Amino acid sequence: MNAPHPDLAHVTPVPLDRAYRLLNHGPTVLVSATHQGRANVMAAAWAMPLDFAPPKVAVVIDKSTFSRGLVEASGRFVLNLPCAAQAGLTVGVGSDSAHTRPDKLAAHGVQLFDRPETPAGCAAPLVAGCVGWLACRLLPEPRTEQTYDLFLGEVEAAWADDRVFRDGRWHFDSAPAELRTLHYVAGGQFYATGASVVVPGAA
Amino acid sequence: MNAPHPDLAHVTPVPLDRAYRLLNHGPTVLVSATHQGRANVMAAAWAMPLDFAPPKVAVVIDKSTFSRGLVEASGRFVLNLPCAAQAGLTVGVGSDSAHTRPDKLAAHGVQLFDRPETPAGCAAPLVAGCVGWLACRLLPEPRTEQTYDLFLGEVEAAWADDRVFRDGRWHFDSAPAELRTLHYVAGGQFYATGASVVVPGAA
Repeated sequence: MNAPHPDLAHVTPVPLDRAYRLLNHGPTVLVSATHQGRANVMAAAWAMPLDFAPPKVAVVIDKSTFSRGLVEASGRFVLNLPCAAQAGLTVGVGSDSAHTRPDKLAAHGVQLFDRPETPAGCAAPLVAGCVGWLACRLLPEPRTEQTYDLFLGEVEAAWADDRVFRDGRWHFDSAPAELRTLHYVAGGQFYATGASVVVPGAA
Repeated sequence: MNAPHPDLAHVTPVPLDRAYRLLNHGPTVLVSATHQGRANVMAAAWAMPLDFAPPKVAVVIDKSTFSRGLVEASGRFVLNLPCAAQAGLTVGVGSDSAHTRPDKLAAHGVQLFDRPETPAGCAAPLVAGCVGWLACRLLPEPRTEQTYDLFLGEVEAAWADDRVFRDGRWHFDSAPAELRTLHYVAGGQFYATGASVVVPGAA
């Protein structure tokens, strides 16, 4: 399982009013969080935008996950968008739990990094090699969290790999296929984000 | 704007324990609902599964939409999965509101149909030409509906077009490209569901 080498030169801030577009097409995400020096990363196929401005997101985080404790304790989480080159890594961190495999991140080649422009107090471990990142502040909603495992967050900062997202939109068609985002199905199978379909006159 | 002719011979029930797979890869949906003889359809890019069994879903339905009133009044909605051939229809019903354009469905070529196996009391208008359908009972959560425009539902019945979904999984690779599902970005642009990416040994 090889993680792509981090190419931090391509990590570019995304204006908050365009941050929803990172998630609008329904890609699978990696949820990362940290608390008191302990970081973790899990996979989540169930994530979506919730609002445009300020940008908000929703993500399902099961009670059995180690990451849930980090999110609840820190009040922060990051939605990272893995690319096709990271399909193995994504299945790996989605299958193993840090409850039973404390070396899970190293085992699956996950490298974390920080960005200096991260808002103060927002501990945001970003997963290297991904193509988009949404750093979120938890919007505490105890009932939905307990009843549905559903967590809501407000996006405080966002970044993207400028080889595939720039000028406020995705540019998958002109980039290597391994940088496309992933859409999980089941049983280790994803679909990559595919061909552009444009409706004339709709812009 | 042409709707595909309904090909109801391909509409096949999906077992409830596989229904989440229709939505797991993050496609854009059409939300349909009916109340007291009035039906409507809107587009929603923000929808996701919420649970496996019983299958549940979450979808954002803005306060400005006509469909929201139908969902609230009937306690039912359907998530329909449009295919690439319906990109124009999807943008059309996502741009026009029945508040200001009462003939919206006819204007965009939307044809509705029912299925006899729909649970009793579940008025479920299905959109013809789509490739997946999740008929849902609203799980009333007044706070999340009012604060976040977020609606939760339990899936009571599901169907798929057996040319692209059978034996509990998608088969896009062996079907015509116009039957692929859609992932909305913005400004009339979608990405179609793309190439299959399989992680060896992960099943």
